[in-house]
Amino acid sequence: MKQLEDSFFSIFIIGLGLIGGSLGLSLKGKWLRYGYDIDRDVVREALEVGAIDKSLSIEEGLKSDIVVISIPVQFIPYFIRENRDKFYKDSILMDTGSTKRVVVDEMRKVDSFFIGGHPIAGKEKGGIKNIDSHLFDGKIFVLTEENNLTEEKKRIVLKLVRDIGSFPVFISADDHDYILGLTSHLPYVVSLSLFYYLMKKEKDKDNIFKFAGSGLRDTTRISSGDPVMSYGMIKTNLDHVKRFISEYIDTLKEVIDVIEKGKFKELAEKVKERRDRIW
Amino acid sequence: MKQLEDSFFSIFIIGLGLIGGSLGLSLKGKWLRYGYDIDRDVVREALEVGAIDKSLSIEEGLKSDIVVISIPVQFIPYFIRENRDKFYKDSILMDTGSTKRVVVDEMRKVDSFFIGGHPIAGKEKGGIKNIDSHLFDGKIFVLTEENNLTEEKKRIVLKLVRDIGSFPVFISADDHDYILGLTSHLPYVVSLSLFYYLMKKEKDKDNIFKFAGSGLRDTTRISSGDPVMSYGMIKTNLDHVKRFISEYIDTLKEVIDVIEKGKFKELAEKVKERRDRIW
Repeated sequence: MKQLEDSFFSIFIIGLGLIGGSLGLSLKGKWLRYGYDIDRDVVREALEVGAIDKSLSIEEGLKSDIVVISIPVQFIPYFIRENRDKFYKDSILMDTGSTKRVVVDEMRKVDSFFIGGHPIAGKEKGGIKNIDSHLFDGKIFVLTEENNLTEEKKRIVLKLVRDIGSFPVFISADDHDYILGLTSHLPYVVSLSLFYYLMKKEKDKDNIFKFAGSGLRDTTRISSGDPVMSYGMIKTNLDHVKRFISEYIDTLKEVIDVIEKGKFKELAEKVKERRDRIW
Repeated sequence: MKQLEDSFFSIFIIGLGLIGGSLGLSLKGKWLRYGYDIDRDVVREALEVGAIDKSLSIEEGLKSDIVVISIPVQFIPYFIRENRDKFYKDSILMDTGSTKRVVVDEMRKVDSFFIGGHPIAGKEKGGIKNIDSHLFDGKIFVLTEENNLTEEKKRIVLKLVRDIGSFPVFISADDHDYILGLTSHLPYVVSLSLFYYLMKKEKDKDNIFKFAGSGLRDTTRISSGDPVMSYGMIKTNLDHVKRFISEYIDTLKEVIDVIEKGKFKELAEKVKERRDRIW
């Protein structure tokens, strides 16, 4: 569709939480930014802090060059299904969900251009109150290889990704869900389960958290993530997550065995060496 | 013993790594700070950065008001045993090890005043190069209830703890090892095993770490800790750690069950609520 002003593309952001709001803020002055949120207070705040230029109804917003759905991933397929007939043939449909299989499967049923997206960026404190124009700086923005973009449409998507300071990386939806299952969903369950276990132990000795240092704080940080969003990413990738948890349990047992056999130092050095090369 | 200068107590720090070196640095201008390290380069650097006033041999250093052993905990009992006859009757023997049972059991065989100590402070990067005069600011400094301090000797220990900016907390060695097993040693094994598991998966898909976000970075931060030190804390508390790992595995299975039963949001909210009250 036509742009409303010459050199500006228009974006319609559905869901103005941490990701949607930060996306809007990062594009300030570069794109025409329309927004929608089910919560009117969030829309008001997004306008006040300049995360969007204007709020639109879903019907109006869908006319934008690109429509980005930034709601918890478990709701994205329903949202697409419910609005299937309202999307525009010439628009690009994208999302920012933490899993990609369930999203892309639904997107291909819509008569629009589509591509799945996932910026690898976040904070444990969500919502419009925590948006950050630098949230995506230097981060990877995953784009699904399964898409129907023309070269021209692809250029618009890539411009969006670069305008927020991220690096586009194309990958299949299945590889995405496998890899993020390992690097994001599994760590979340591990972290949450650790804190939950300590909460149960707290019933025996009520002051255990008094002795908690920064190690425990960091190891359990992601368990303070938004429950609805976190649940969605696990629920929509549960087969992978279950398999990884089961293999992780085997690894815990293996590590205990390594300790008992007096071979732990070598293992710890190997882990430290690899980890220190990454961060 | 007599102080070498009027209003100054003297401390002899054995092991000038992150904890020993930072301890010295924090006491600059407040205590006479003597130091020893098995590595002559470390001693030289400690002197250069002002972590200690003077290096002494073990024989000379043991005449100080308080002797603090800051070496990896698995070596502390051996060190005490080996030097048992050299300690001074009037000195206070303390340590900074991550477990307390094995240390206190050995300390009570020495003909000195003794108390176990453990500052709940650290960084994943150890060694004299990473020492920090603010490392102990506002942190808890655990002191064992099992000690033979007179009121006068206790005052010296408490002055030391307060002079580095920490809060003294008295607890039994057994409670310490139980609680720190939960809040420190278990998280370390969980974190290290998670990263180790991902390293194994990396063999199937070699670019998984490219997609790693800050969640994984924080969850695995403590697995970059010094391998010798980390091994020591687990090895000297292995009965607790094994039991906690086993219970933690049950919790992981419980969490999967909660997800499958659709009750996960409530659990995640409970965890987030409790965690956010702590940090």
